[in-house]
Amino acid sequence: MPKFTVRILPYNKTTEIDDCVTLLEALLKMGITFNNLCGGNGTCGRCKLLVLEGNVYSRGTGKLTAAEIEKGYVLACQSYPVSDAVVEVPRGTMARAKETAGKDADIFVDSGYKAEDYEYLVSPVTRKVFTRLEGPTIARSIADHQNLCEAVKEQLKLEAHIKDSGILMGLPDILRQNNFEVTSTVSFEMDYAEIIGIEAKNTADKNYSVIVDIGTTTVVAHLIDMNSYKSVNAKACFNSQGAYGRELTSRIISAEKHGKDRLHELIIQDINNLIESLVIENRIDPLDINAVVCVGNTVMTHFLLNLPTYNIRRYPYVAASVDTSPVRAGELKININPKGLIYTLPGISAWVGSDVTVGVLACGMHKREEISLLIDIGTNGEIVIGNKQWLVATSASAGPSLEGASVECGMRAEEGAIEKVFAEEGRILYKTIGNAPIKGICGSGIIDFIAVLLNEKIINRSGKFIKGSSKEVTCEDGINRFTLKDGNNPGRFVYLTENDIENVIAAKAAIYAAVKILLKRLSLSFSQISRFFICGAFGNHLNLKSAVAIGLIPDLAPENIEFAGNTAIKGSKMFALNKDFMFTLKEICKMTTYYDLIGANDYVEEFTKAMFLPHTDIEEFASI
Amino acid sequence: MPKFTVRILPYNKTTEIDDCVTLLEALLKMGITFNNLCGGNGTCGRCKLLVLEGNVYSRGTGKLTAAEIEKGYVLACQSYPVSDAVVEVPRGTMARAKETAGKDADIFVDSGYKAEDYEYLVSPVTRKVFTRLEGPTIARSIADHQNLCEAVKEQLKLEAHIKDSGILMGLPDILRQNNFEVTSTVSFEMDYAEIIGIEAKNTADKNYSVIVDIGTTTVVAHLIDMNSYKSVNAKACFNSQGAYGRELTSRIISAEKHGKDRLHELIIQDINNLIESLVIENRIDPLDINAVVCVGNTVMTHFLLNLPTYNIRRYPYVAASVDTSPVRAGELKININPKGLIYTLPGISAWVGSDVTVGVLACGMHKREEISLLIDIGTNGEIVIGNKQWLVATSASAGPSLEGASVECGMRAEEGAIEKVFAEEGRILYKTIGNAPIKGICGSGIIDFIAVLLNEKIINRSGKFIKGSSKEVTCEDGINRFTLKDGNNPGRFVYLTENDIENVIAAKAAIYAAVKILLKRLSLSFSQISRFFICGAFGNHLNLKSAVAIGLIPDLAPENIEFAGNTAIKGSKMFALNKDFMFTLKEICKMTTYYDLIGANDYVEEFTKAMFLPHTDIEEFASI
Repeated sequence: MPKFTVRILPYNKTTEIDDCVTLLEALLKMGITFNNLCGGNGTCGRCKLLVLEGNVYSRGTGKLTAAEIEKGYVLACQSYPVSDAVVEVPRGTMARAKETAGKDADIFVDSGYKAEDYEYLVSPVTRKVFTRLEGPTIARSIADHQNLCEAVKEQLKLEAHIKDSGILMGLPDILRQNNFEVTSTVSFEMDYAEIIGIEAKNTADKNYSVIVDIGTTTVVAHLIDMNSYKSVNAKACFNSQGAYGRELTSRIISAEKHGKDRLHELIIQDINNLIESLVIENRIDPLDINAVVCVGNTVMTHFLLNLPTYNIRRYPYVAASVDTSPVRAGELKININPKGLIYTLPGISAWVGSDVTVGVLACGMHKREEISLLIDIGTNGEIVIGNKQWLVATSASAGPSLEGASVECGMRAEEGAIEKVFAEEGRILYKTIGNAPIKGICGSGIIDFIAVLLNEKIINRSGKFIKGSSKEVTCEDGINRFTLKDGNNPGRFVYLTENDIENVIAAKAAIYAAVKILLKRLSLSFSQISRFFICGAFGNHLNLKSAVAIGLIPDLAPENIEFAGNTAIKGSKMFALNKDFMFTLKEICKMTTYYDLIGANDYVEEFTKAMFLPHTDIEEFASI
Repeated sequence: MPKFTVRILPYNKTTEIDDCVTLLEALLKMGITFNNLCGGNGTCGRCKLLVLEGNVYSRGTGKLTAAEIEKGYVLACQSYPVSDAVVEVPRGTMARAKETAGKDADIFVDSGYKAEDYEYLVSPVTRKVFTRLEGPTIARSIADHQNLCEAVKEQLKLEAHIKDSGILMGLPDILRQNNFEVTSTVSFEMDYAEIIGIEAKNTADKNYSVIVDIGTTTVVAHLIDMNSYKSVNAKACFNSQGAYGRELTSRIISAEKHGKDRLHELIIQDINNLIESLVIENRIDPLDINAVVCVGNTVMTHFLLNLPTYNIRRYPYVAASVDTSPVRAGELKININPKGLIYTLPGISAWVGSDVTVGVLACGMHKREEISLLIDIGTNGEIVIGNKQWLVATSASAGPSLEGASVECGMRAEEGAIEKVFAEEGRILYKTIGNAPIKGICGSGIIDFIAVLLNEKIINRSGKFIKGSSKEVTCEDGINRFTLKDGNNPGRFVYLTENDIENVIAAKAAIYAAVKILLKRLSLSFSQISRFFICGAFGNHLNLKSAVAIGLIPDLAPENIEFAGNTAIKGSKMFALNKDFMFTLKEICKMTTYYDLIGANDYVEEFTKAMFLPHTDIEEFASI
């Protein structure tokens, strides 16, 4: 089998590639991740490479322009070298997975949390307990283990045990070297505390947890100080698994083809990168992080735990588990105290995960007399309806466009992203995060942008540009686009294409149709919903009016709608600070019925009706 | 540094030995274990080697006769090669560590156990649960993990969880390959069952546990069928750690000098050898063993778990732990189901271990109104006095002579060992186990033998041979001995030397003195003790009359004395069959006060008074 040597710029890495192995596979194996969405099918056109030297065979896909082909561009997933070669990964192709948010990630930090606001702040998942032990004597020849555990028990009013033999082995020395003054880090089982670390002297002031929302497209991590109960900082990145497909199904197929280990490793790597940024920026020791609470859709938690996902995409769509026990950080290779626990919270079904369960908790739906409705807007849109007696949930595949991915100028909500678009005296204006020069546009900006274009009659209700409506509408490569220019920085601009708008319409239609189906099945109308929670990682800036205007959310009285923000993070934090919420979460899972849209014959009809702005039945959006 | 090549016969193994490394160390490293008792100090004279070729430098110890030195014998612990050499390990020097008992090990099996005798037989430490799961459907799209756990819960009436990610990863496949019919092996936590294994189809009939009594000198293992609750078989061996000293203190010193790992590995190896014999002989799969329950003195359980022992021999004599959580078999490298648990039961102090706690349980001392007294005769003799309100315990170092070690012709109670000695018409007769030709003499035989020699006035009350008392008394190398010959097998014989008798007298004096001290401290006399339990691994044949005759146990009315046998095994089995006894054991630990003889100024006086047969104060043994 011939092998070809390929040098990859700008990394200046060299690899040997076997005959008939695509450049995508070879580069992924080297750890180079891609801005690739389709999982290597040649359909997204994102994995562009520039061939500088040598011969590379490339299958045609129609995803490259004649000009690009002329310049030497190929799609990595459809190309393999037939000689030694030099290729370059263009900037636009490189994945932004490792770009963690800068200072403006503060917009993710729910800075409003104050310990005193929370009556339930009584029982965090980890604690540090400083003890001055009485040294043993002949009259009280108590064993070291029992001596420590009794002292910890006295403080916690709970049995304490050391279960790890490594910690037990080191106990006699650390006690005697420190005059029997040590700090024990504990995690909790149902009816006892487990000592998962012992440190010299008093280190009780250094105890952190991390909570992670593993989205299909975006991964968000918050660092929590377990003494002040505050979110110290937050970081986010695109999920590196994006290189294996933007949809859950593509990732499952990829795991079946190439093995699940790689997808598992990528999510662990993303979490470790986020933790690394958090500890460096906040100057803390990663060993002082003693717990990580992870939520996400069921496929993501399966990849996190390296569980097989194949039955999730096969009839009757079954998860390996929707509720797993905590795992030691060392076992998962997550870089905190290796004895610390990685908690995965309980989910409802293969398609409604723990991010939704904690969302219900954060919104308090399970405690309300009246019926409320929750929409969690992400790559999958999850919908929950119910009250304190019953809950019903479903999930609709929306795609990543509302998170700023799969939109040509899309980006995450970080410095330089357009987060607001508005019209003033006929001119279309914008605001970027941090008022920085334009770098791209994030989810809330995209929704605003489309609402404004519609309102200003620049696009029609099908999302197509109206001829002659604006001089900012141009046509490139046969596709119409509207460009927003940065007045202060010539050359900086953002545009929205008809394709982008189509993606967003499909996303909102999927979610809206799911809401309609669920209401229909429950014989409920919008007027019977007393409270409407919109959740998602939009920072603090989702314009609900715009969301209604494009038909993403129903046309309800504004006072009934609440933008609840990233409830996945909020609910996880509630658990991190009060482990007894585990019982509540299990209760929520138990009282929730999962409804699978696969069985809904009328879903396509509802979806098609929602493929207009805001909707085919305009009377559903009477206020507009 | 020069190295010398040494060939070792009869193993015909060759090793390179560094300058100044003793033959003992070199051979131990090669896995050759020795009949060595002093731990390499040159004081026991047991590690004799024969130098066949080459020059070996040897320090003088006075432990070898002139004839032996002439023949080329050296002590391995005091000798190192100064040229290449060939040495032979004589048969008498080889440790019998790996000789497990043959068919006659049945004498260890408490065959009297029947399930129906035990009211408490409700709650074994492991169970197998066969389930036929309902396969998932769209209407009931339950995750595999939850599907299995609910079915197991229904049978056990107890929450069930899979905590091991490896087992969870394999679950979807094993379910679908077996039409959702699988058998789960469970162990138990306080309030839930943990699934530690999943097998195809119904294997519920194959579930075993092993219980192990780790003595300083002897290791005994029983195989328990967890369906019939019967002891299927038992095996025993000498503790291989014997090569590092016969007393606990020498082993602790050895662990400090050479590291504790070697002692840890030896005990694991002994347990694995015993398990291997058990599974081969009974044709079971070691993976069908799902739990091992270990008891022993605190030093032994420390070595088992590889905990540091150095504080146990240093003032104020403190253990690292007297109550440790179960450990996975895989972690300890014990060859059963690697997810199975190795239970170590709670002990009382650094010098009174779990073997005593379970002894109290087996004898029921903790439930009696009246005061009873327990003596566990082993390398350390432990004494417990008390009733249902209080218990006091102490420990005295007796040495291994009562277990057949450190007696020249001593052996464990197995086929060919003299187990009974008696006088008939002036002739001294014997009975061997299995009525086989004489191979040696075990503990019960030694006690009988001394009692008979005393009664027949062949030895005096100091244990010295009376001149002209018997023609069987001879003198070899300046030491008197009495020889018992096998009439049917010329050349087969057993003898007892004055040194052997001295060892036994010291052992029984240590135990008797400890009993006296404890009674004195409690202001109790023998007459206030209503029940007297003698425990130890003597098989079923300890002659209580002989034990009183030599002063090992007090001169009480026979009806008050009960030979309870190996209560370490009996009590451990009670736990294996009913895990709720863990609470009882913890209660027993809590209600027991440890009394350390180190603080008893009058111990030496009592010991000296007990160095006669039966005792200096003959009125204490009025019946004789």
